[in-house]
Amino acid sequence: MYGELLRDAFATATGIGPRPLAGGRLPRPVIEIIERDDGLVHGAPAAHYLDGPEHWQPYDHRAVDRVRGATLDVGTGAGRVALLLQERGVPVTGLDTSAGALDVCRRRGVRDLVCGTVDTHAADGRRYDTFLLLGNNLGLFEGRERAPAFLAALAALARPGAQVIAQGTNPYGTRDPLHTGYHELNRRRGRLGGQLRLRLRYRDLATGWFDYLVCSPDELAELVRGSAWELSDVDVADAPYYLATLRLAGGPAAAVADTR
Amino acid sequence: MYGELLRDAFATATGIGPRPLAGGRLPRPVIEIIERDDGLVHGAPAAHYLDGPEHWQPYDHRAVDRVRGATLDVGTGAGRVALLLQERGVPVTGLDTSAGALDVCRRRGVRDLVCGTVDTHAADGRRYDTFLLLGNNLGLFEGRERAPAFLAALAALARPGAQVIAQGTNPYGTRDPLHTGYHELNRRRGRLGGQLRLRLRYRDLATGWFDYLVCSPDELAELVRGSAWELSDVDVADAPYYLATLRLAGGPAAAVADTR
Repeated sequence: MYGELLRDAFATATGIGPRPLAGGRLPRPVIEIIERDDGLVHGAPAAHYLDGPEHWQPYDHRAVDRVRGATLDVGTGAGRVALLLQERGVPVTGLDTSAGALDVCRRRGVRDLVCGTVDTHAADGRRYDTFLLLGNNLGLFEGRERAPAFLAALAALARPGAQVIAQGTNPYGTRDPLHTGYHELNRRRGRLGGQLRLRLRYRDLATGWFDYLVCSPDELAELVRGSAWELSDVDVADAPYYLATLRLAGGPAAAVADTR
Repeated sequence: MYGELLRDAFATATGIGPRPLAGGRLPRPVIEIIERDDGLVHGAPAAHYLDGPEHWQPYDHRAVDRVRGATLDVGTGAGRVALLLQERGVPVTGLDTSAGALDVCRRRGVRDLVCGTVDTHAADGRRYDTFLLLGNNLGLFEGRERAPAFLAALAALARPGAQVIAQGTNPYGTRDPLHTGYHELNRRRGRLGGQLRLRLRYRDLATGWFDYLVCSPDELAELVRGSAWELSDVDVADAPYYLATLRLAGGPAAAVADTR
């Protein structure tokens, strides 16, 4: 589903490959449909997956400016972040579970790509100094069940002193009953309020249902506690969007944090 | 559902009223989600409902140029066609089943609006020289079951010599198996190939399932046969999109057609 979506978005943006057309004639925008398990549906143009840095939000720029060393772009999508880092001479690897997405990355010029999850990739023997989870990919923490294993896989992939830079959104500023009611429903079933149960749809294709976490910085701090990582910084300059930085506990950065 | 969609699209376009925002902060495009009964989903930006004539397709311009006399804009939506005709001094009435859509029309300046179907409006005593079914609203013929009653309601609303100008799309040019397979499924269940079974979704709202007809000019001719109307012209200059003109049988235009 995701590969098809990005392939069509790529064709629409570049004219390379067959573009989706209405009635075989008029260009049709490529739109990702996000379905929540309470029946909410939301359409989002897929073009943003291919956006160049000139269209990025300020926090994306601040995130890439913090990158150092060998970098794993987790959930690289169409490779927008990996492409910029590559241009800057950063050794960057794009990781995604979608082979179709990686195909689009390859055609856009991303050189180092791995198909898999952080768990499967940990067995490959590669190690990194920075892990990027941009485009709301803090969501990959999923919830209380998955977060420890996810953080452990990142730690297994980490060099000493490694950092995670993850972009999240604090979901609790809204007064929209559609969302506050969902948060309440989630809590009643033992989940974090913003632990979204989603599937993505495009044309006749759909992903399975999966959890994607939208959480507050406080909830994130709780999830990180007891892991190999420490939450060292939360940049809320563009609230409700934020950038969380985690550092491998016991590394030099953690030592600095200890002396504060 | 449709009224909410248009209200949000209107707010996004004009800044009047609360706009949909992502995270309460970034503008979010308003996207209508169209679900077909075989599971196909399609997202379409709603902004086109408010498009001014400078963004219209050529067939829309040719359609409004054919208008004469008192005009009923059937399925007026956000009133884009009614607004142009009103500016041109044409006595135009916008008809829609969605009170929310009519509210948006009113706020955009459309003066004469009726909430209802062609059937309910036939009882109001108003009569028209031109009926417009633009924006693919030939779809309101629905299929073999509904078309006779729909055409009879238009005839009941018609003055002598009245015309219907309806925009359709010939669906049979595609080789996409997603669509050809659906056409085949439809024929097996006794429906016209392009007799779409749809519902529209927006956020947590959904319409009921309804039929919306996408048919060829030949199929249209078959549907019109035996009604009070004659198919007098099909403009296929922008195929697969077309403009069909129907004239009330027995009127002067029909007499002209008889002598050809």
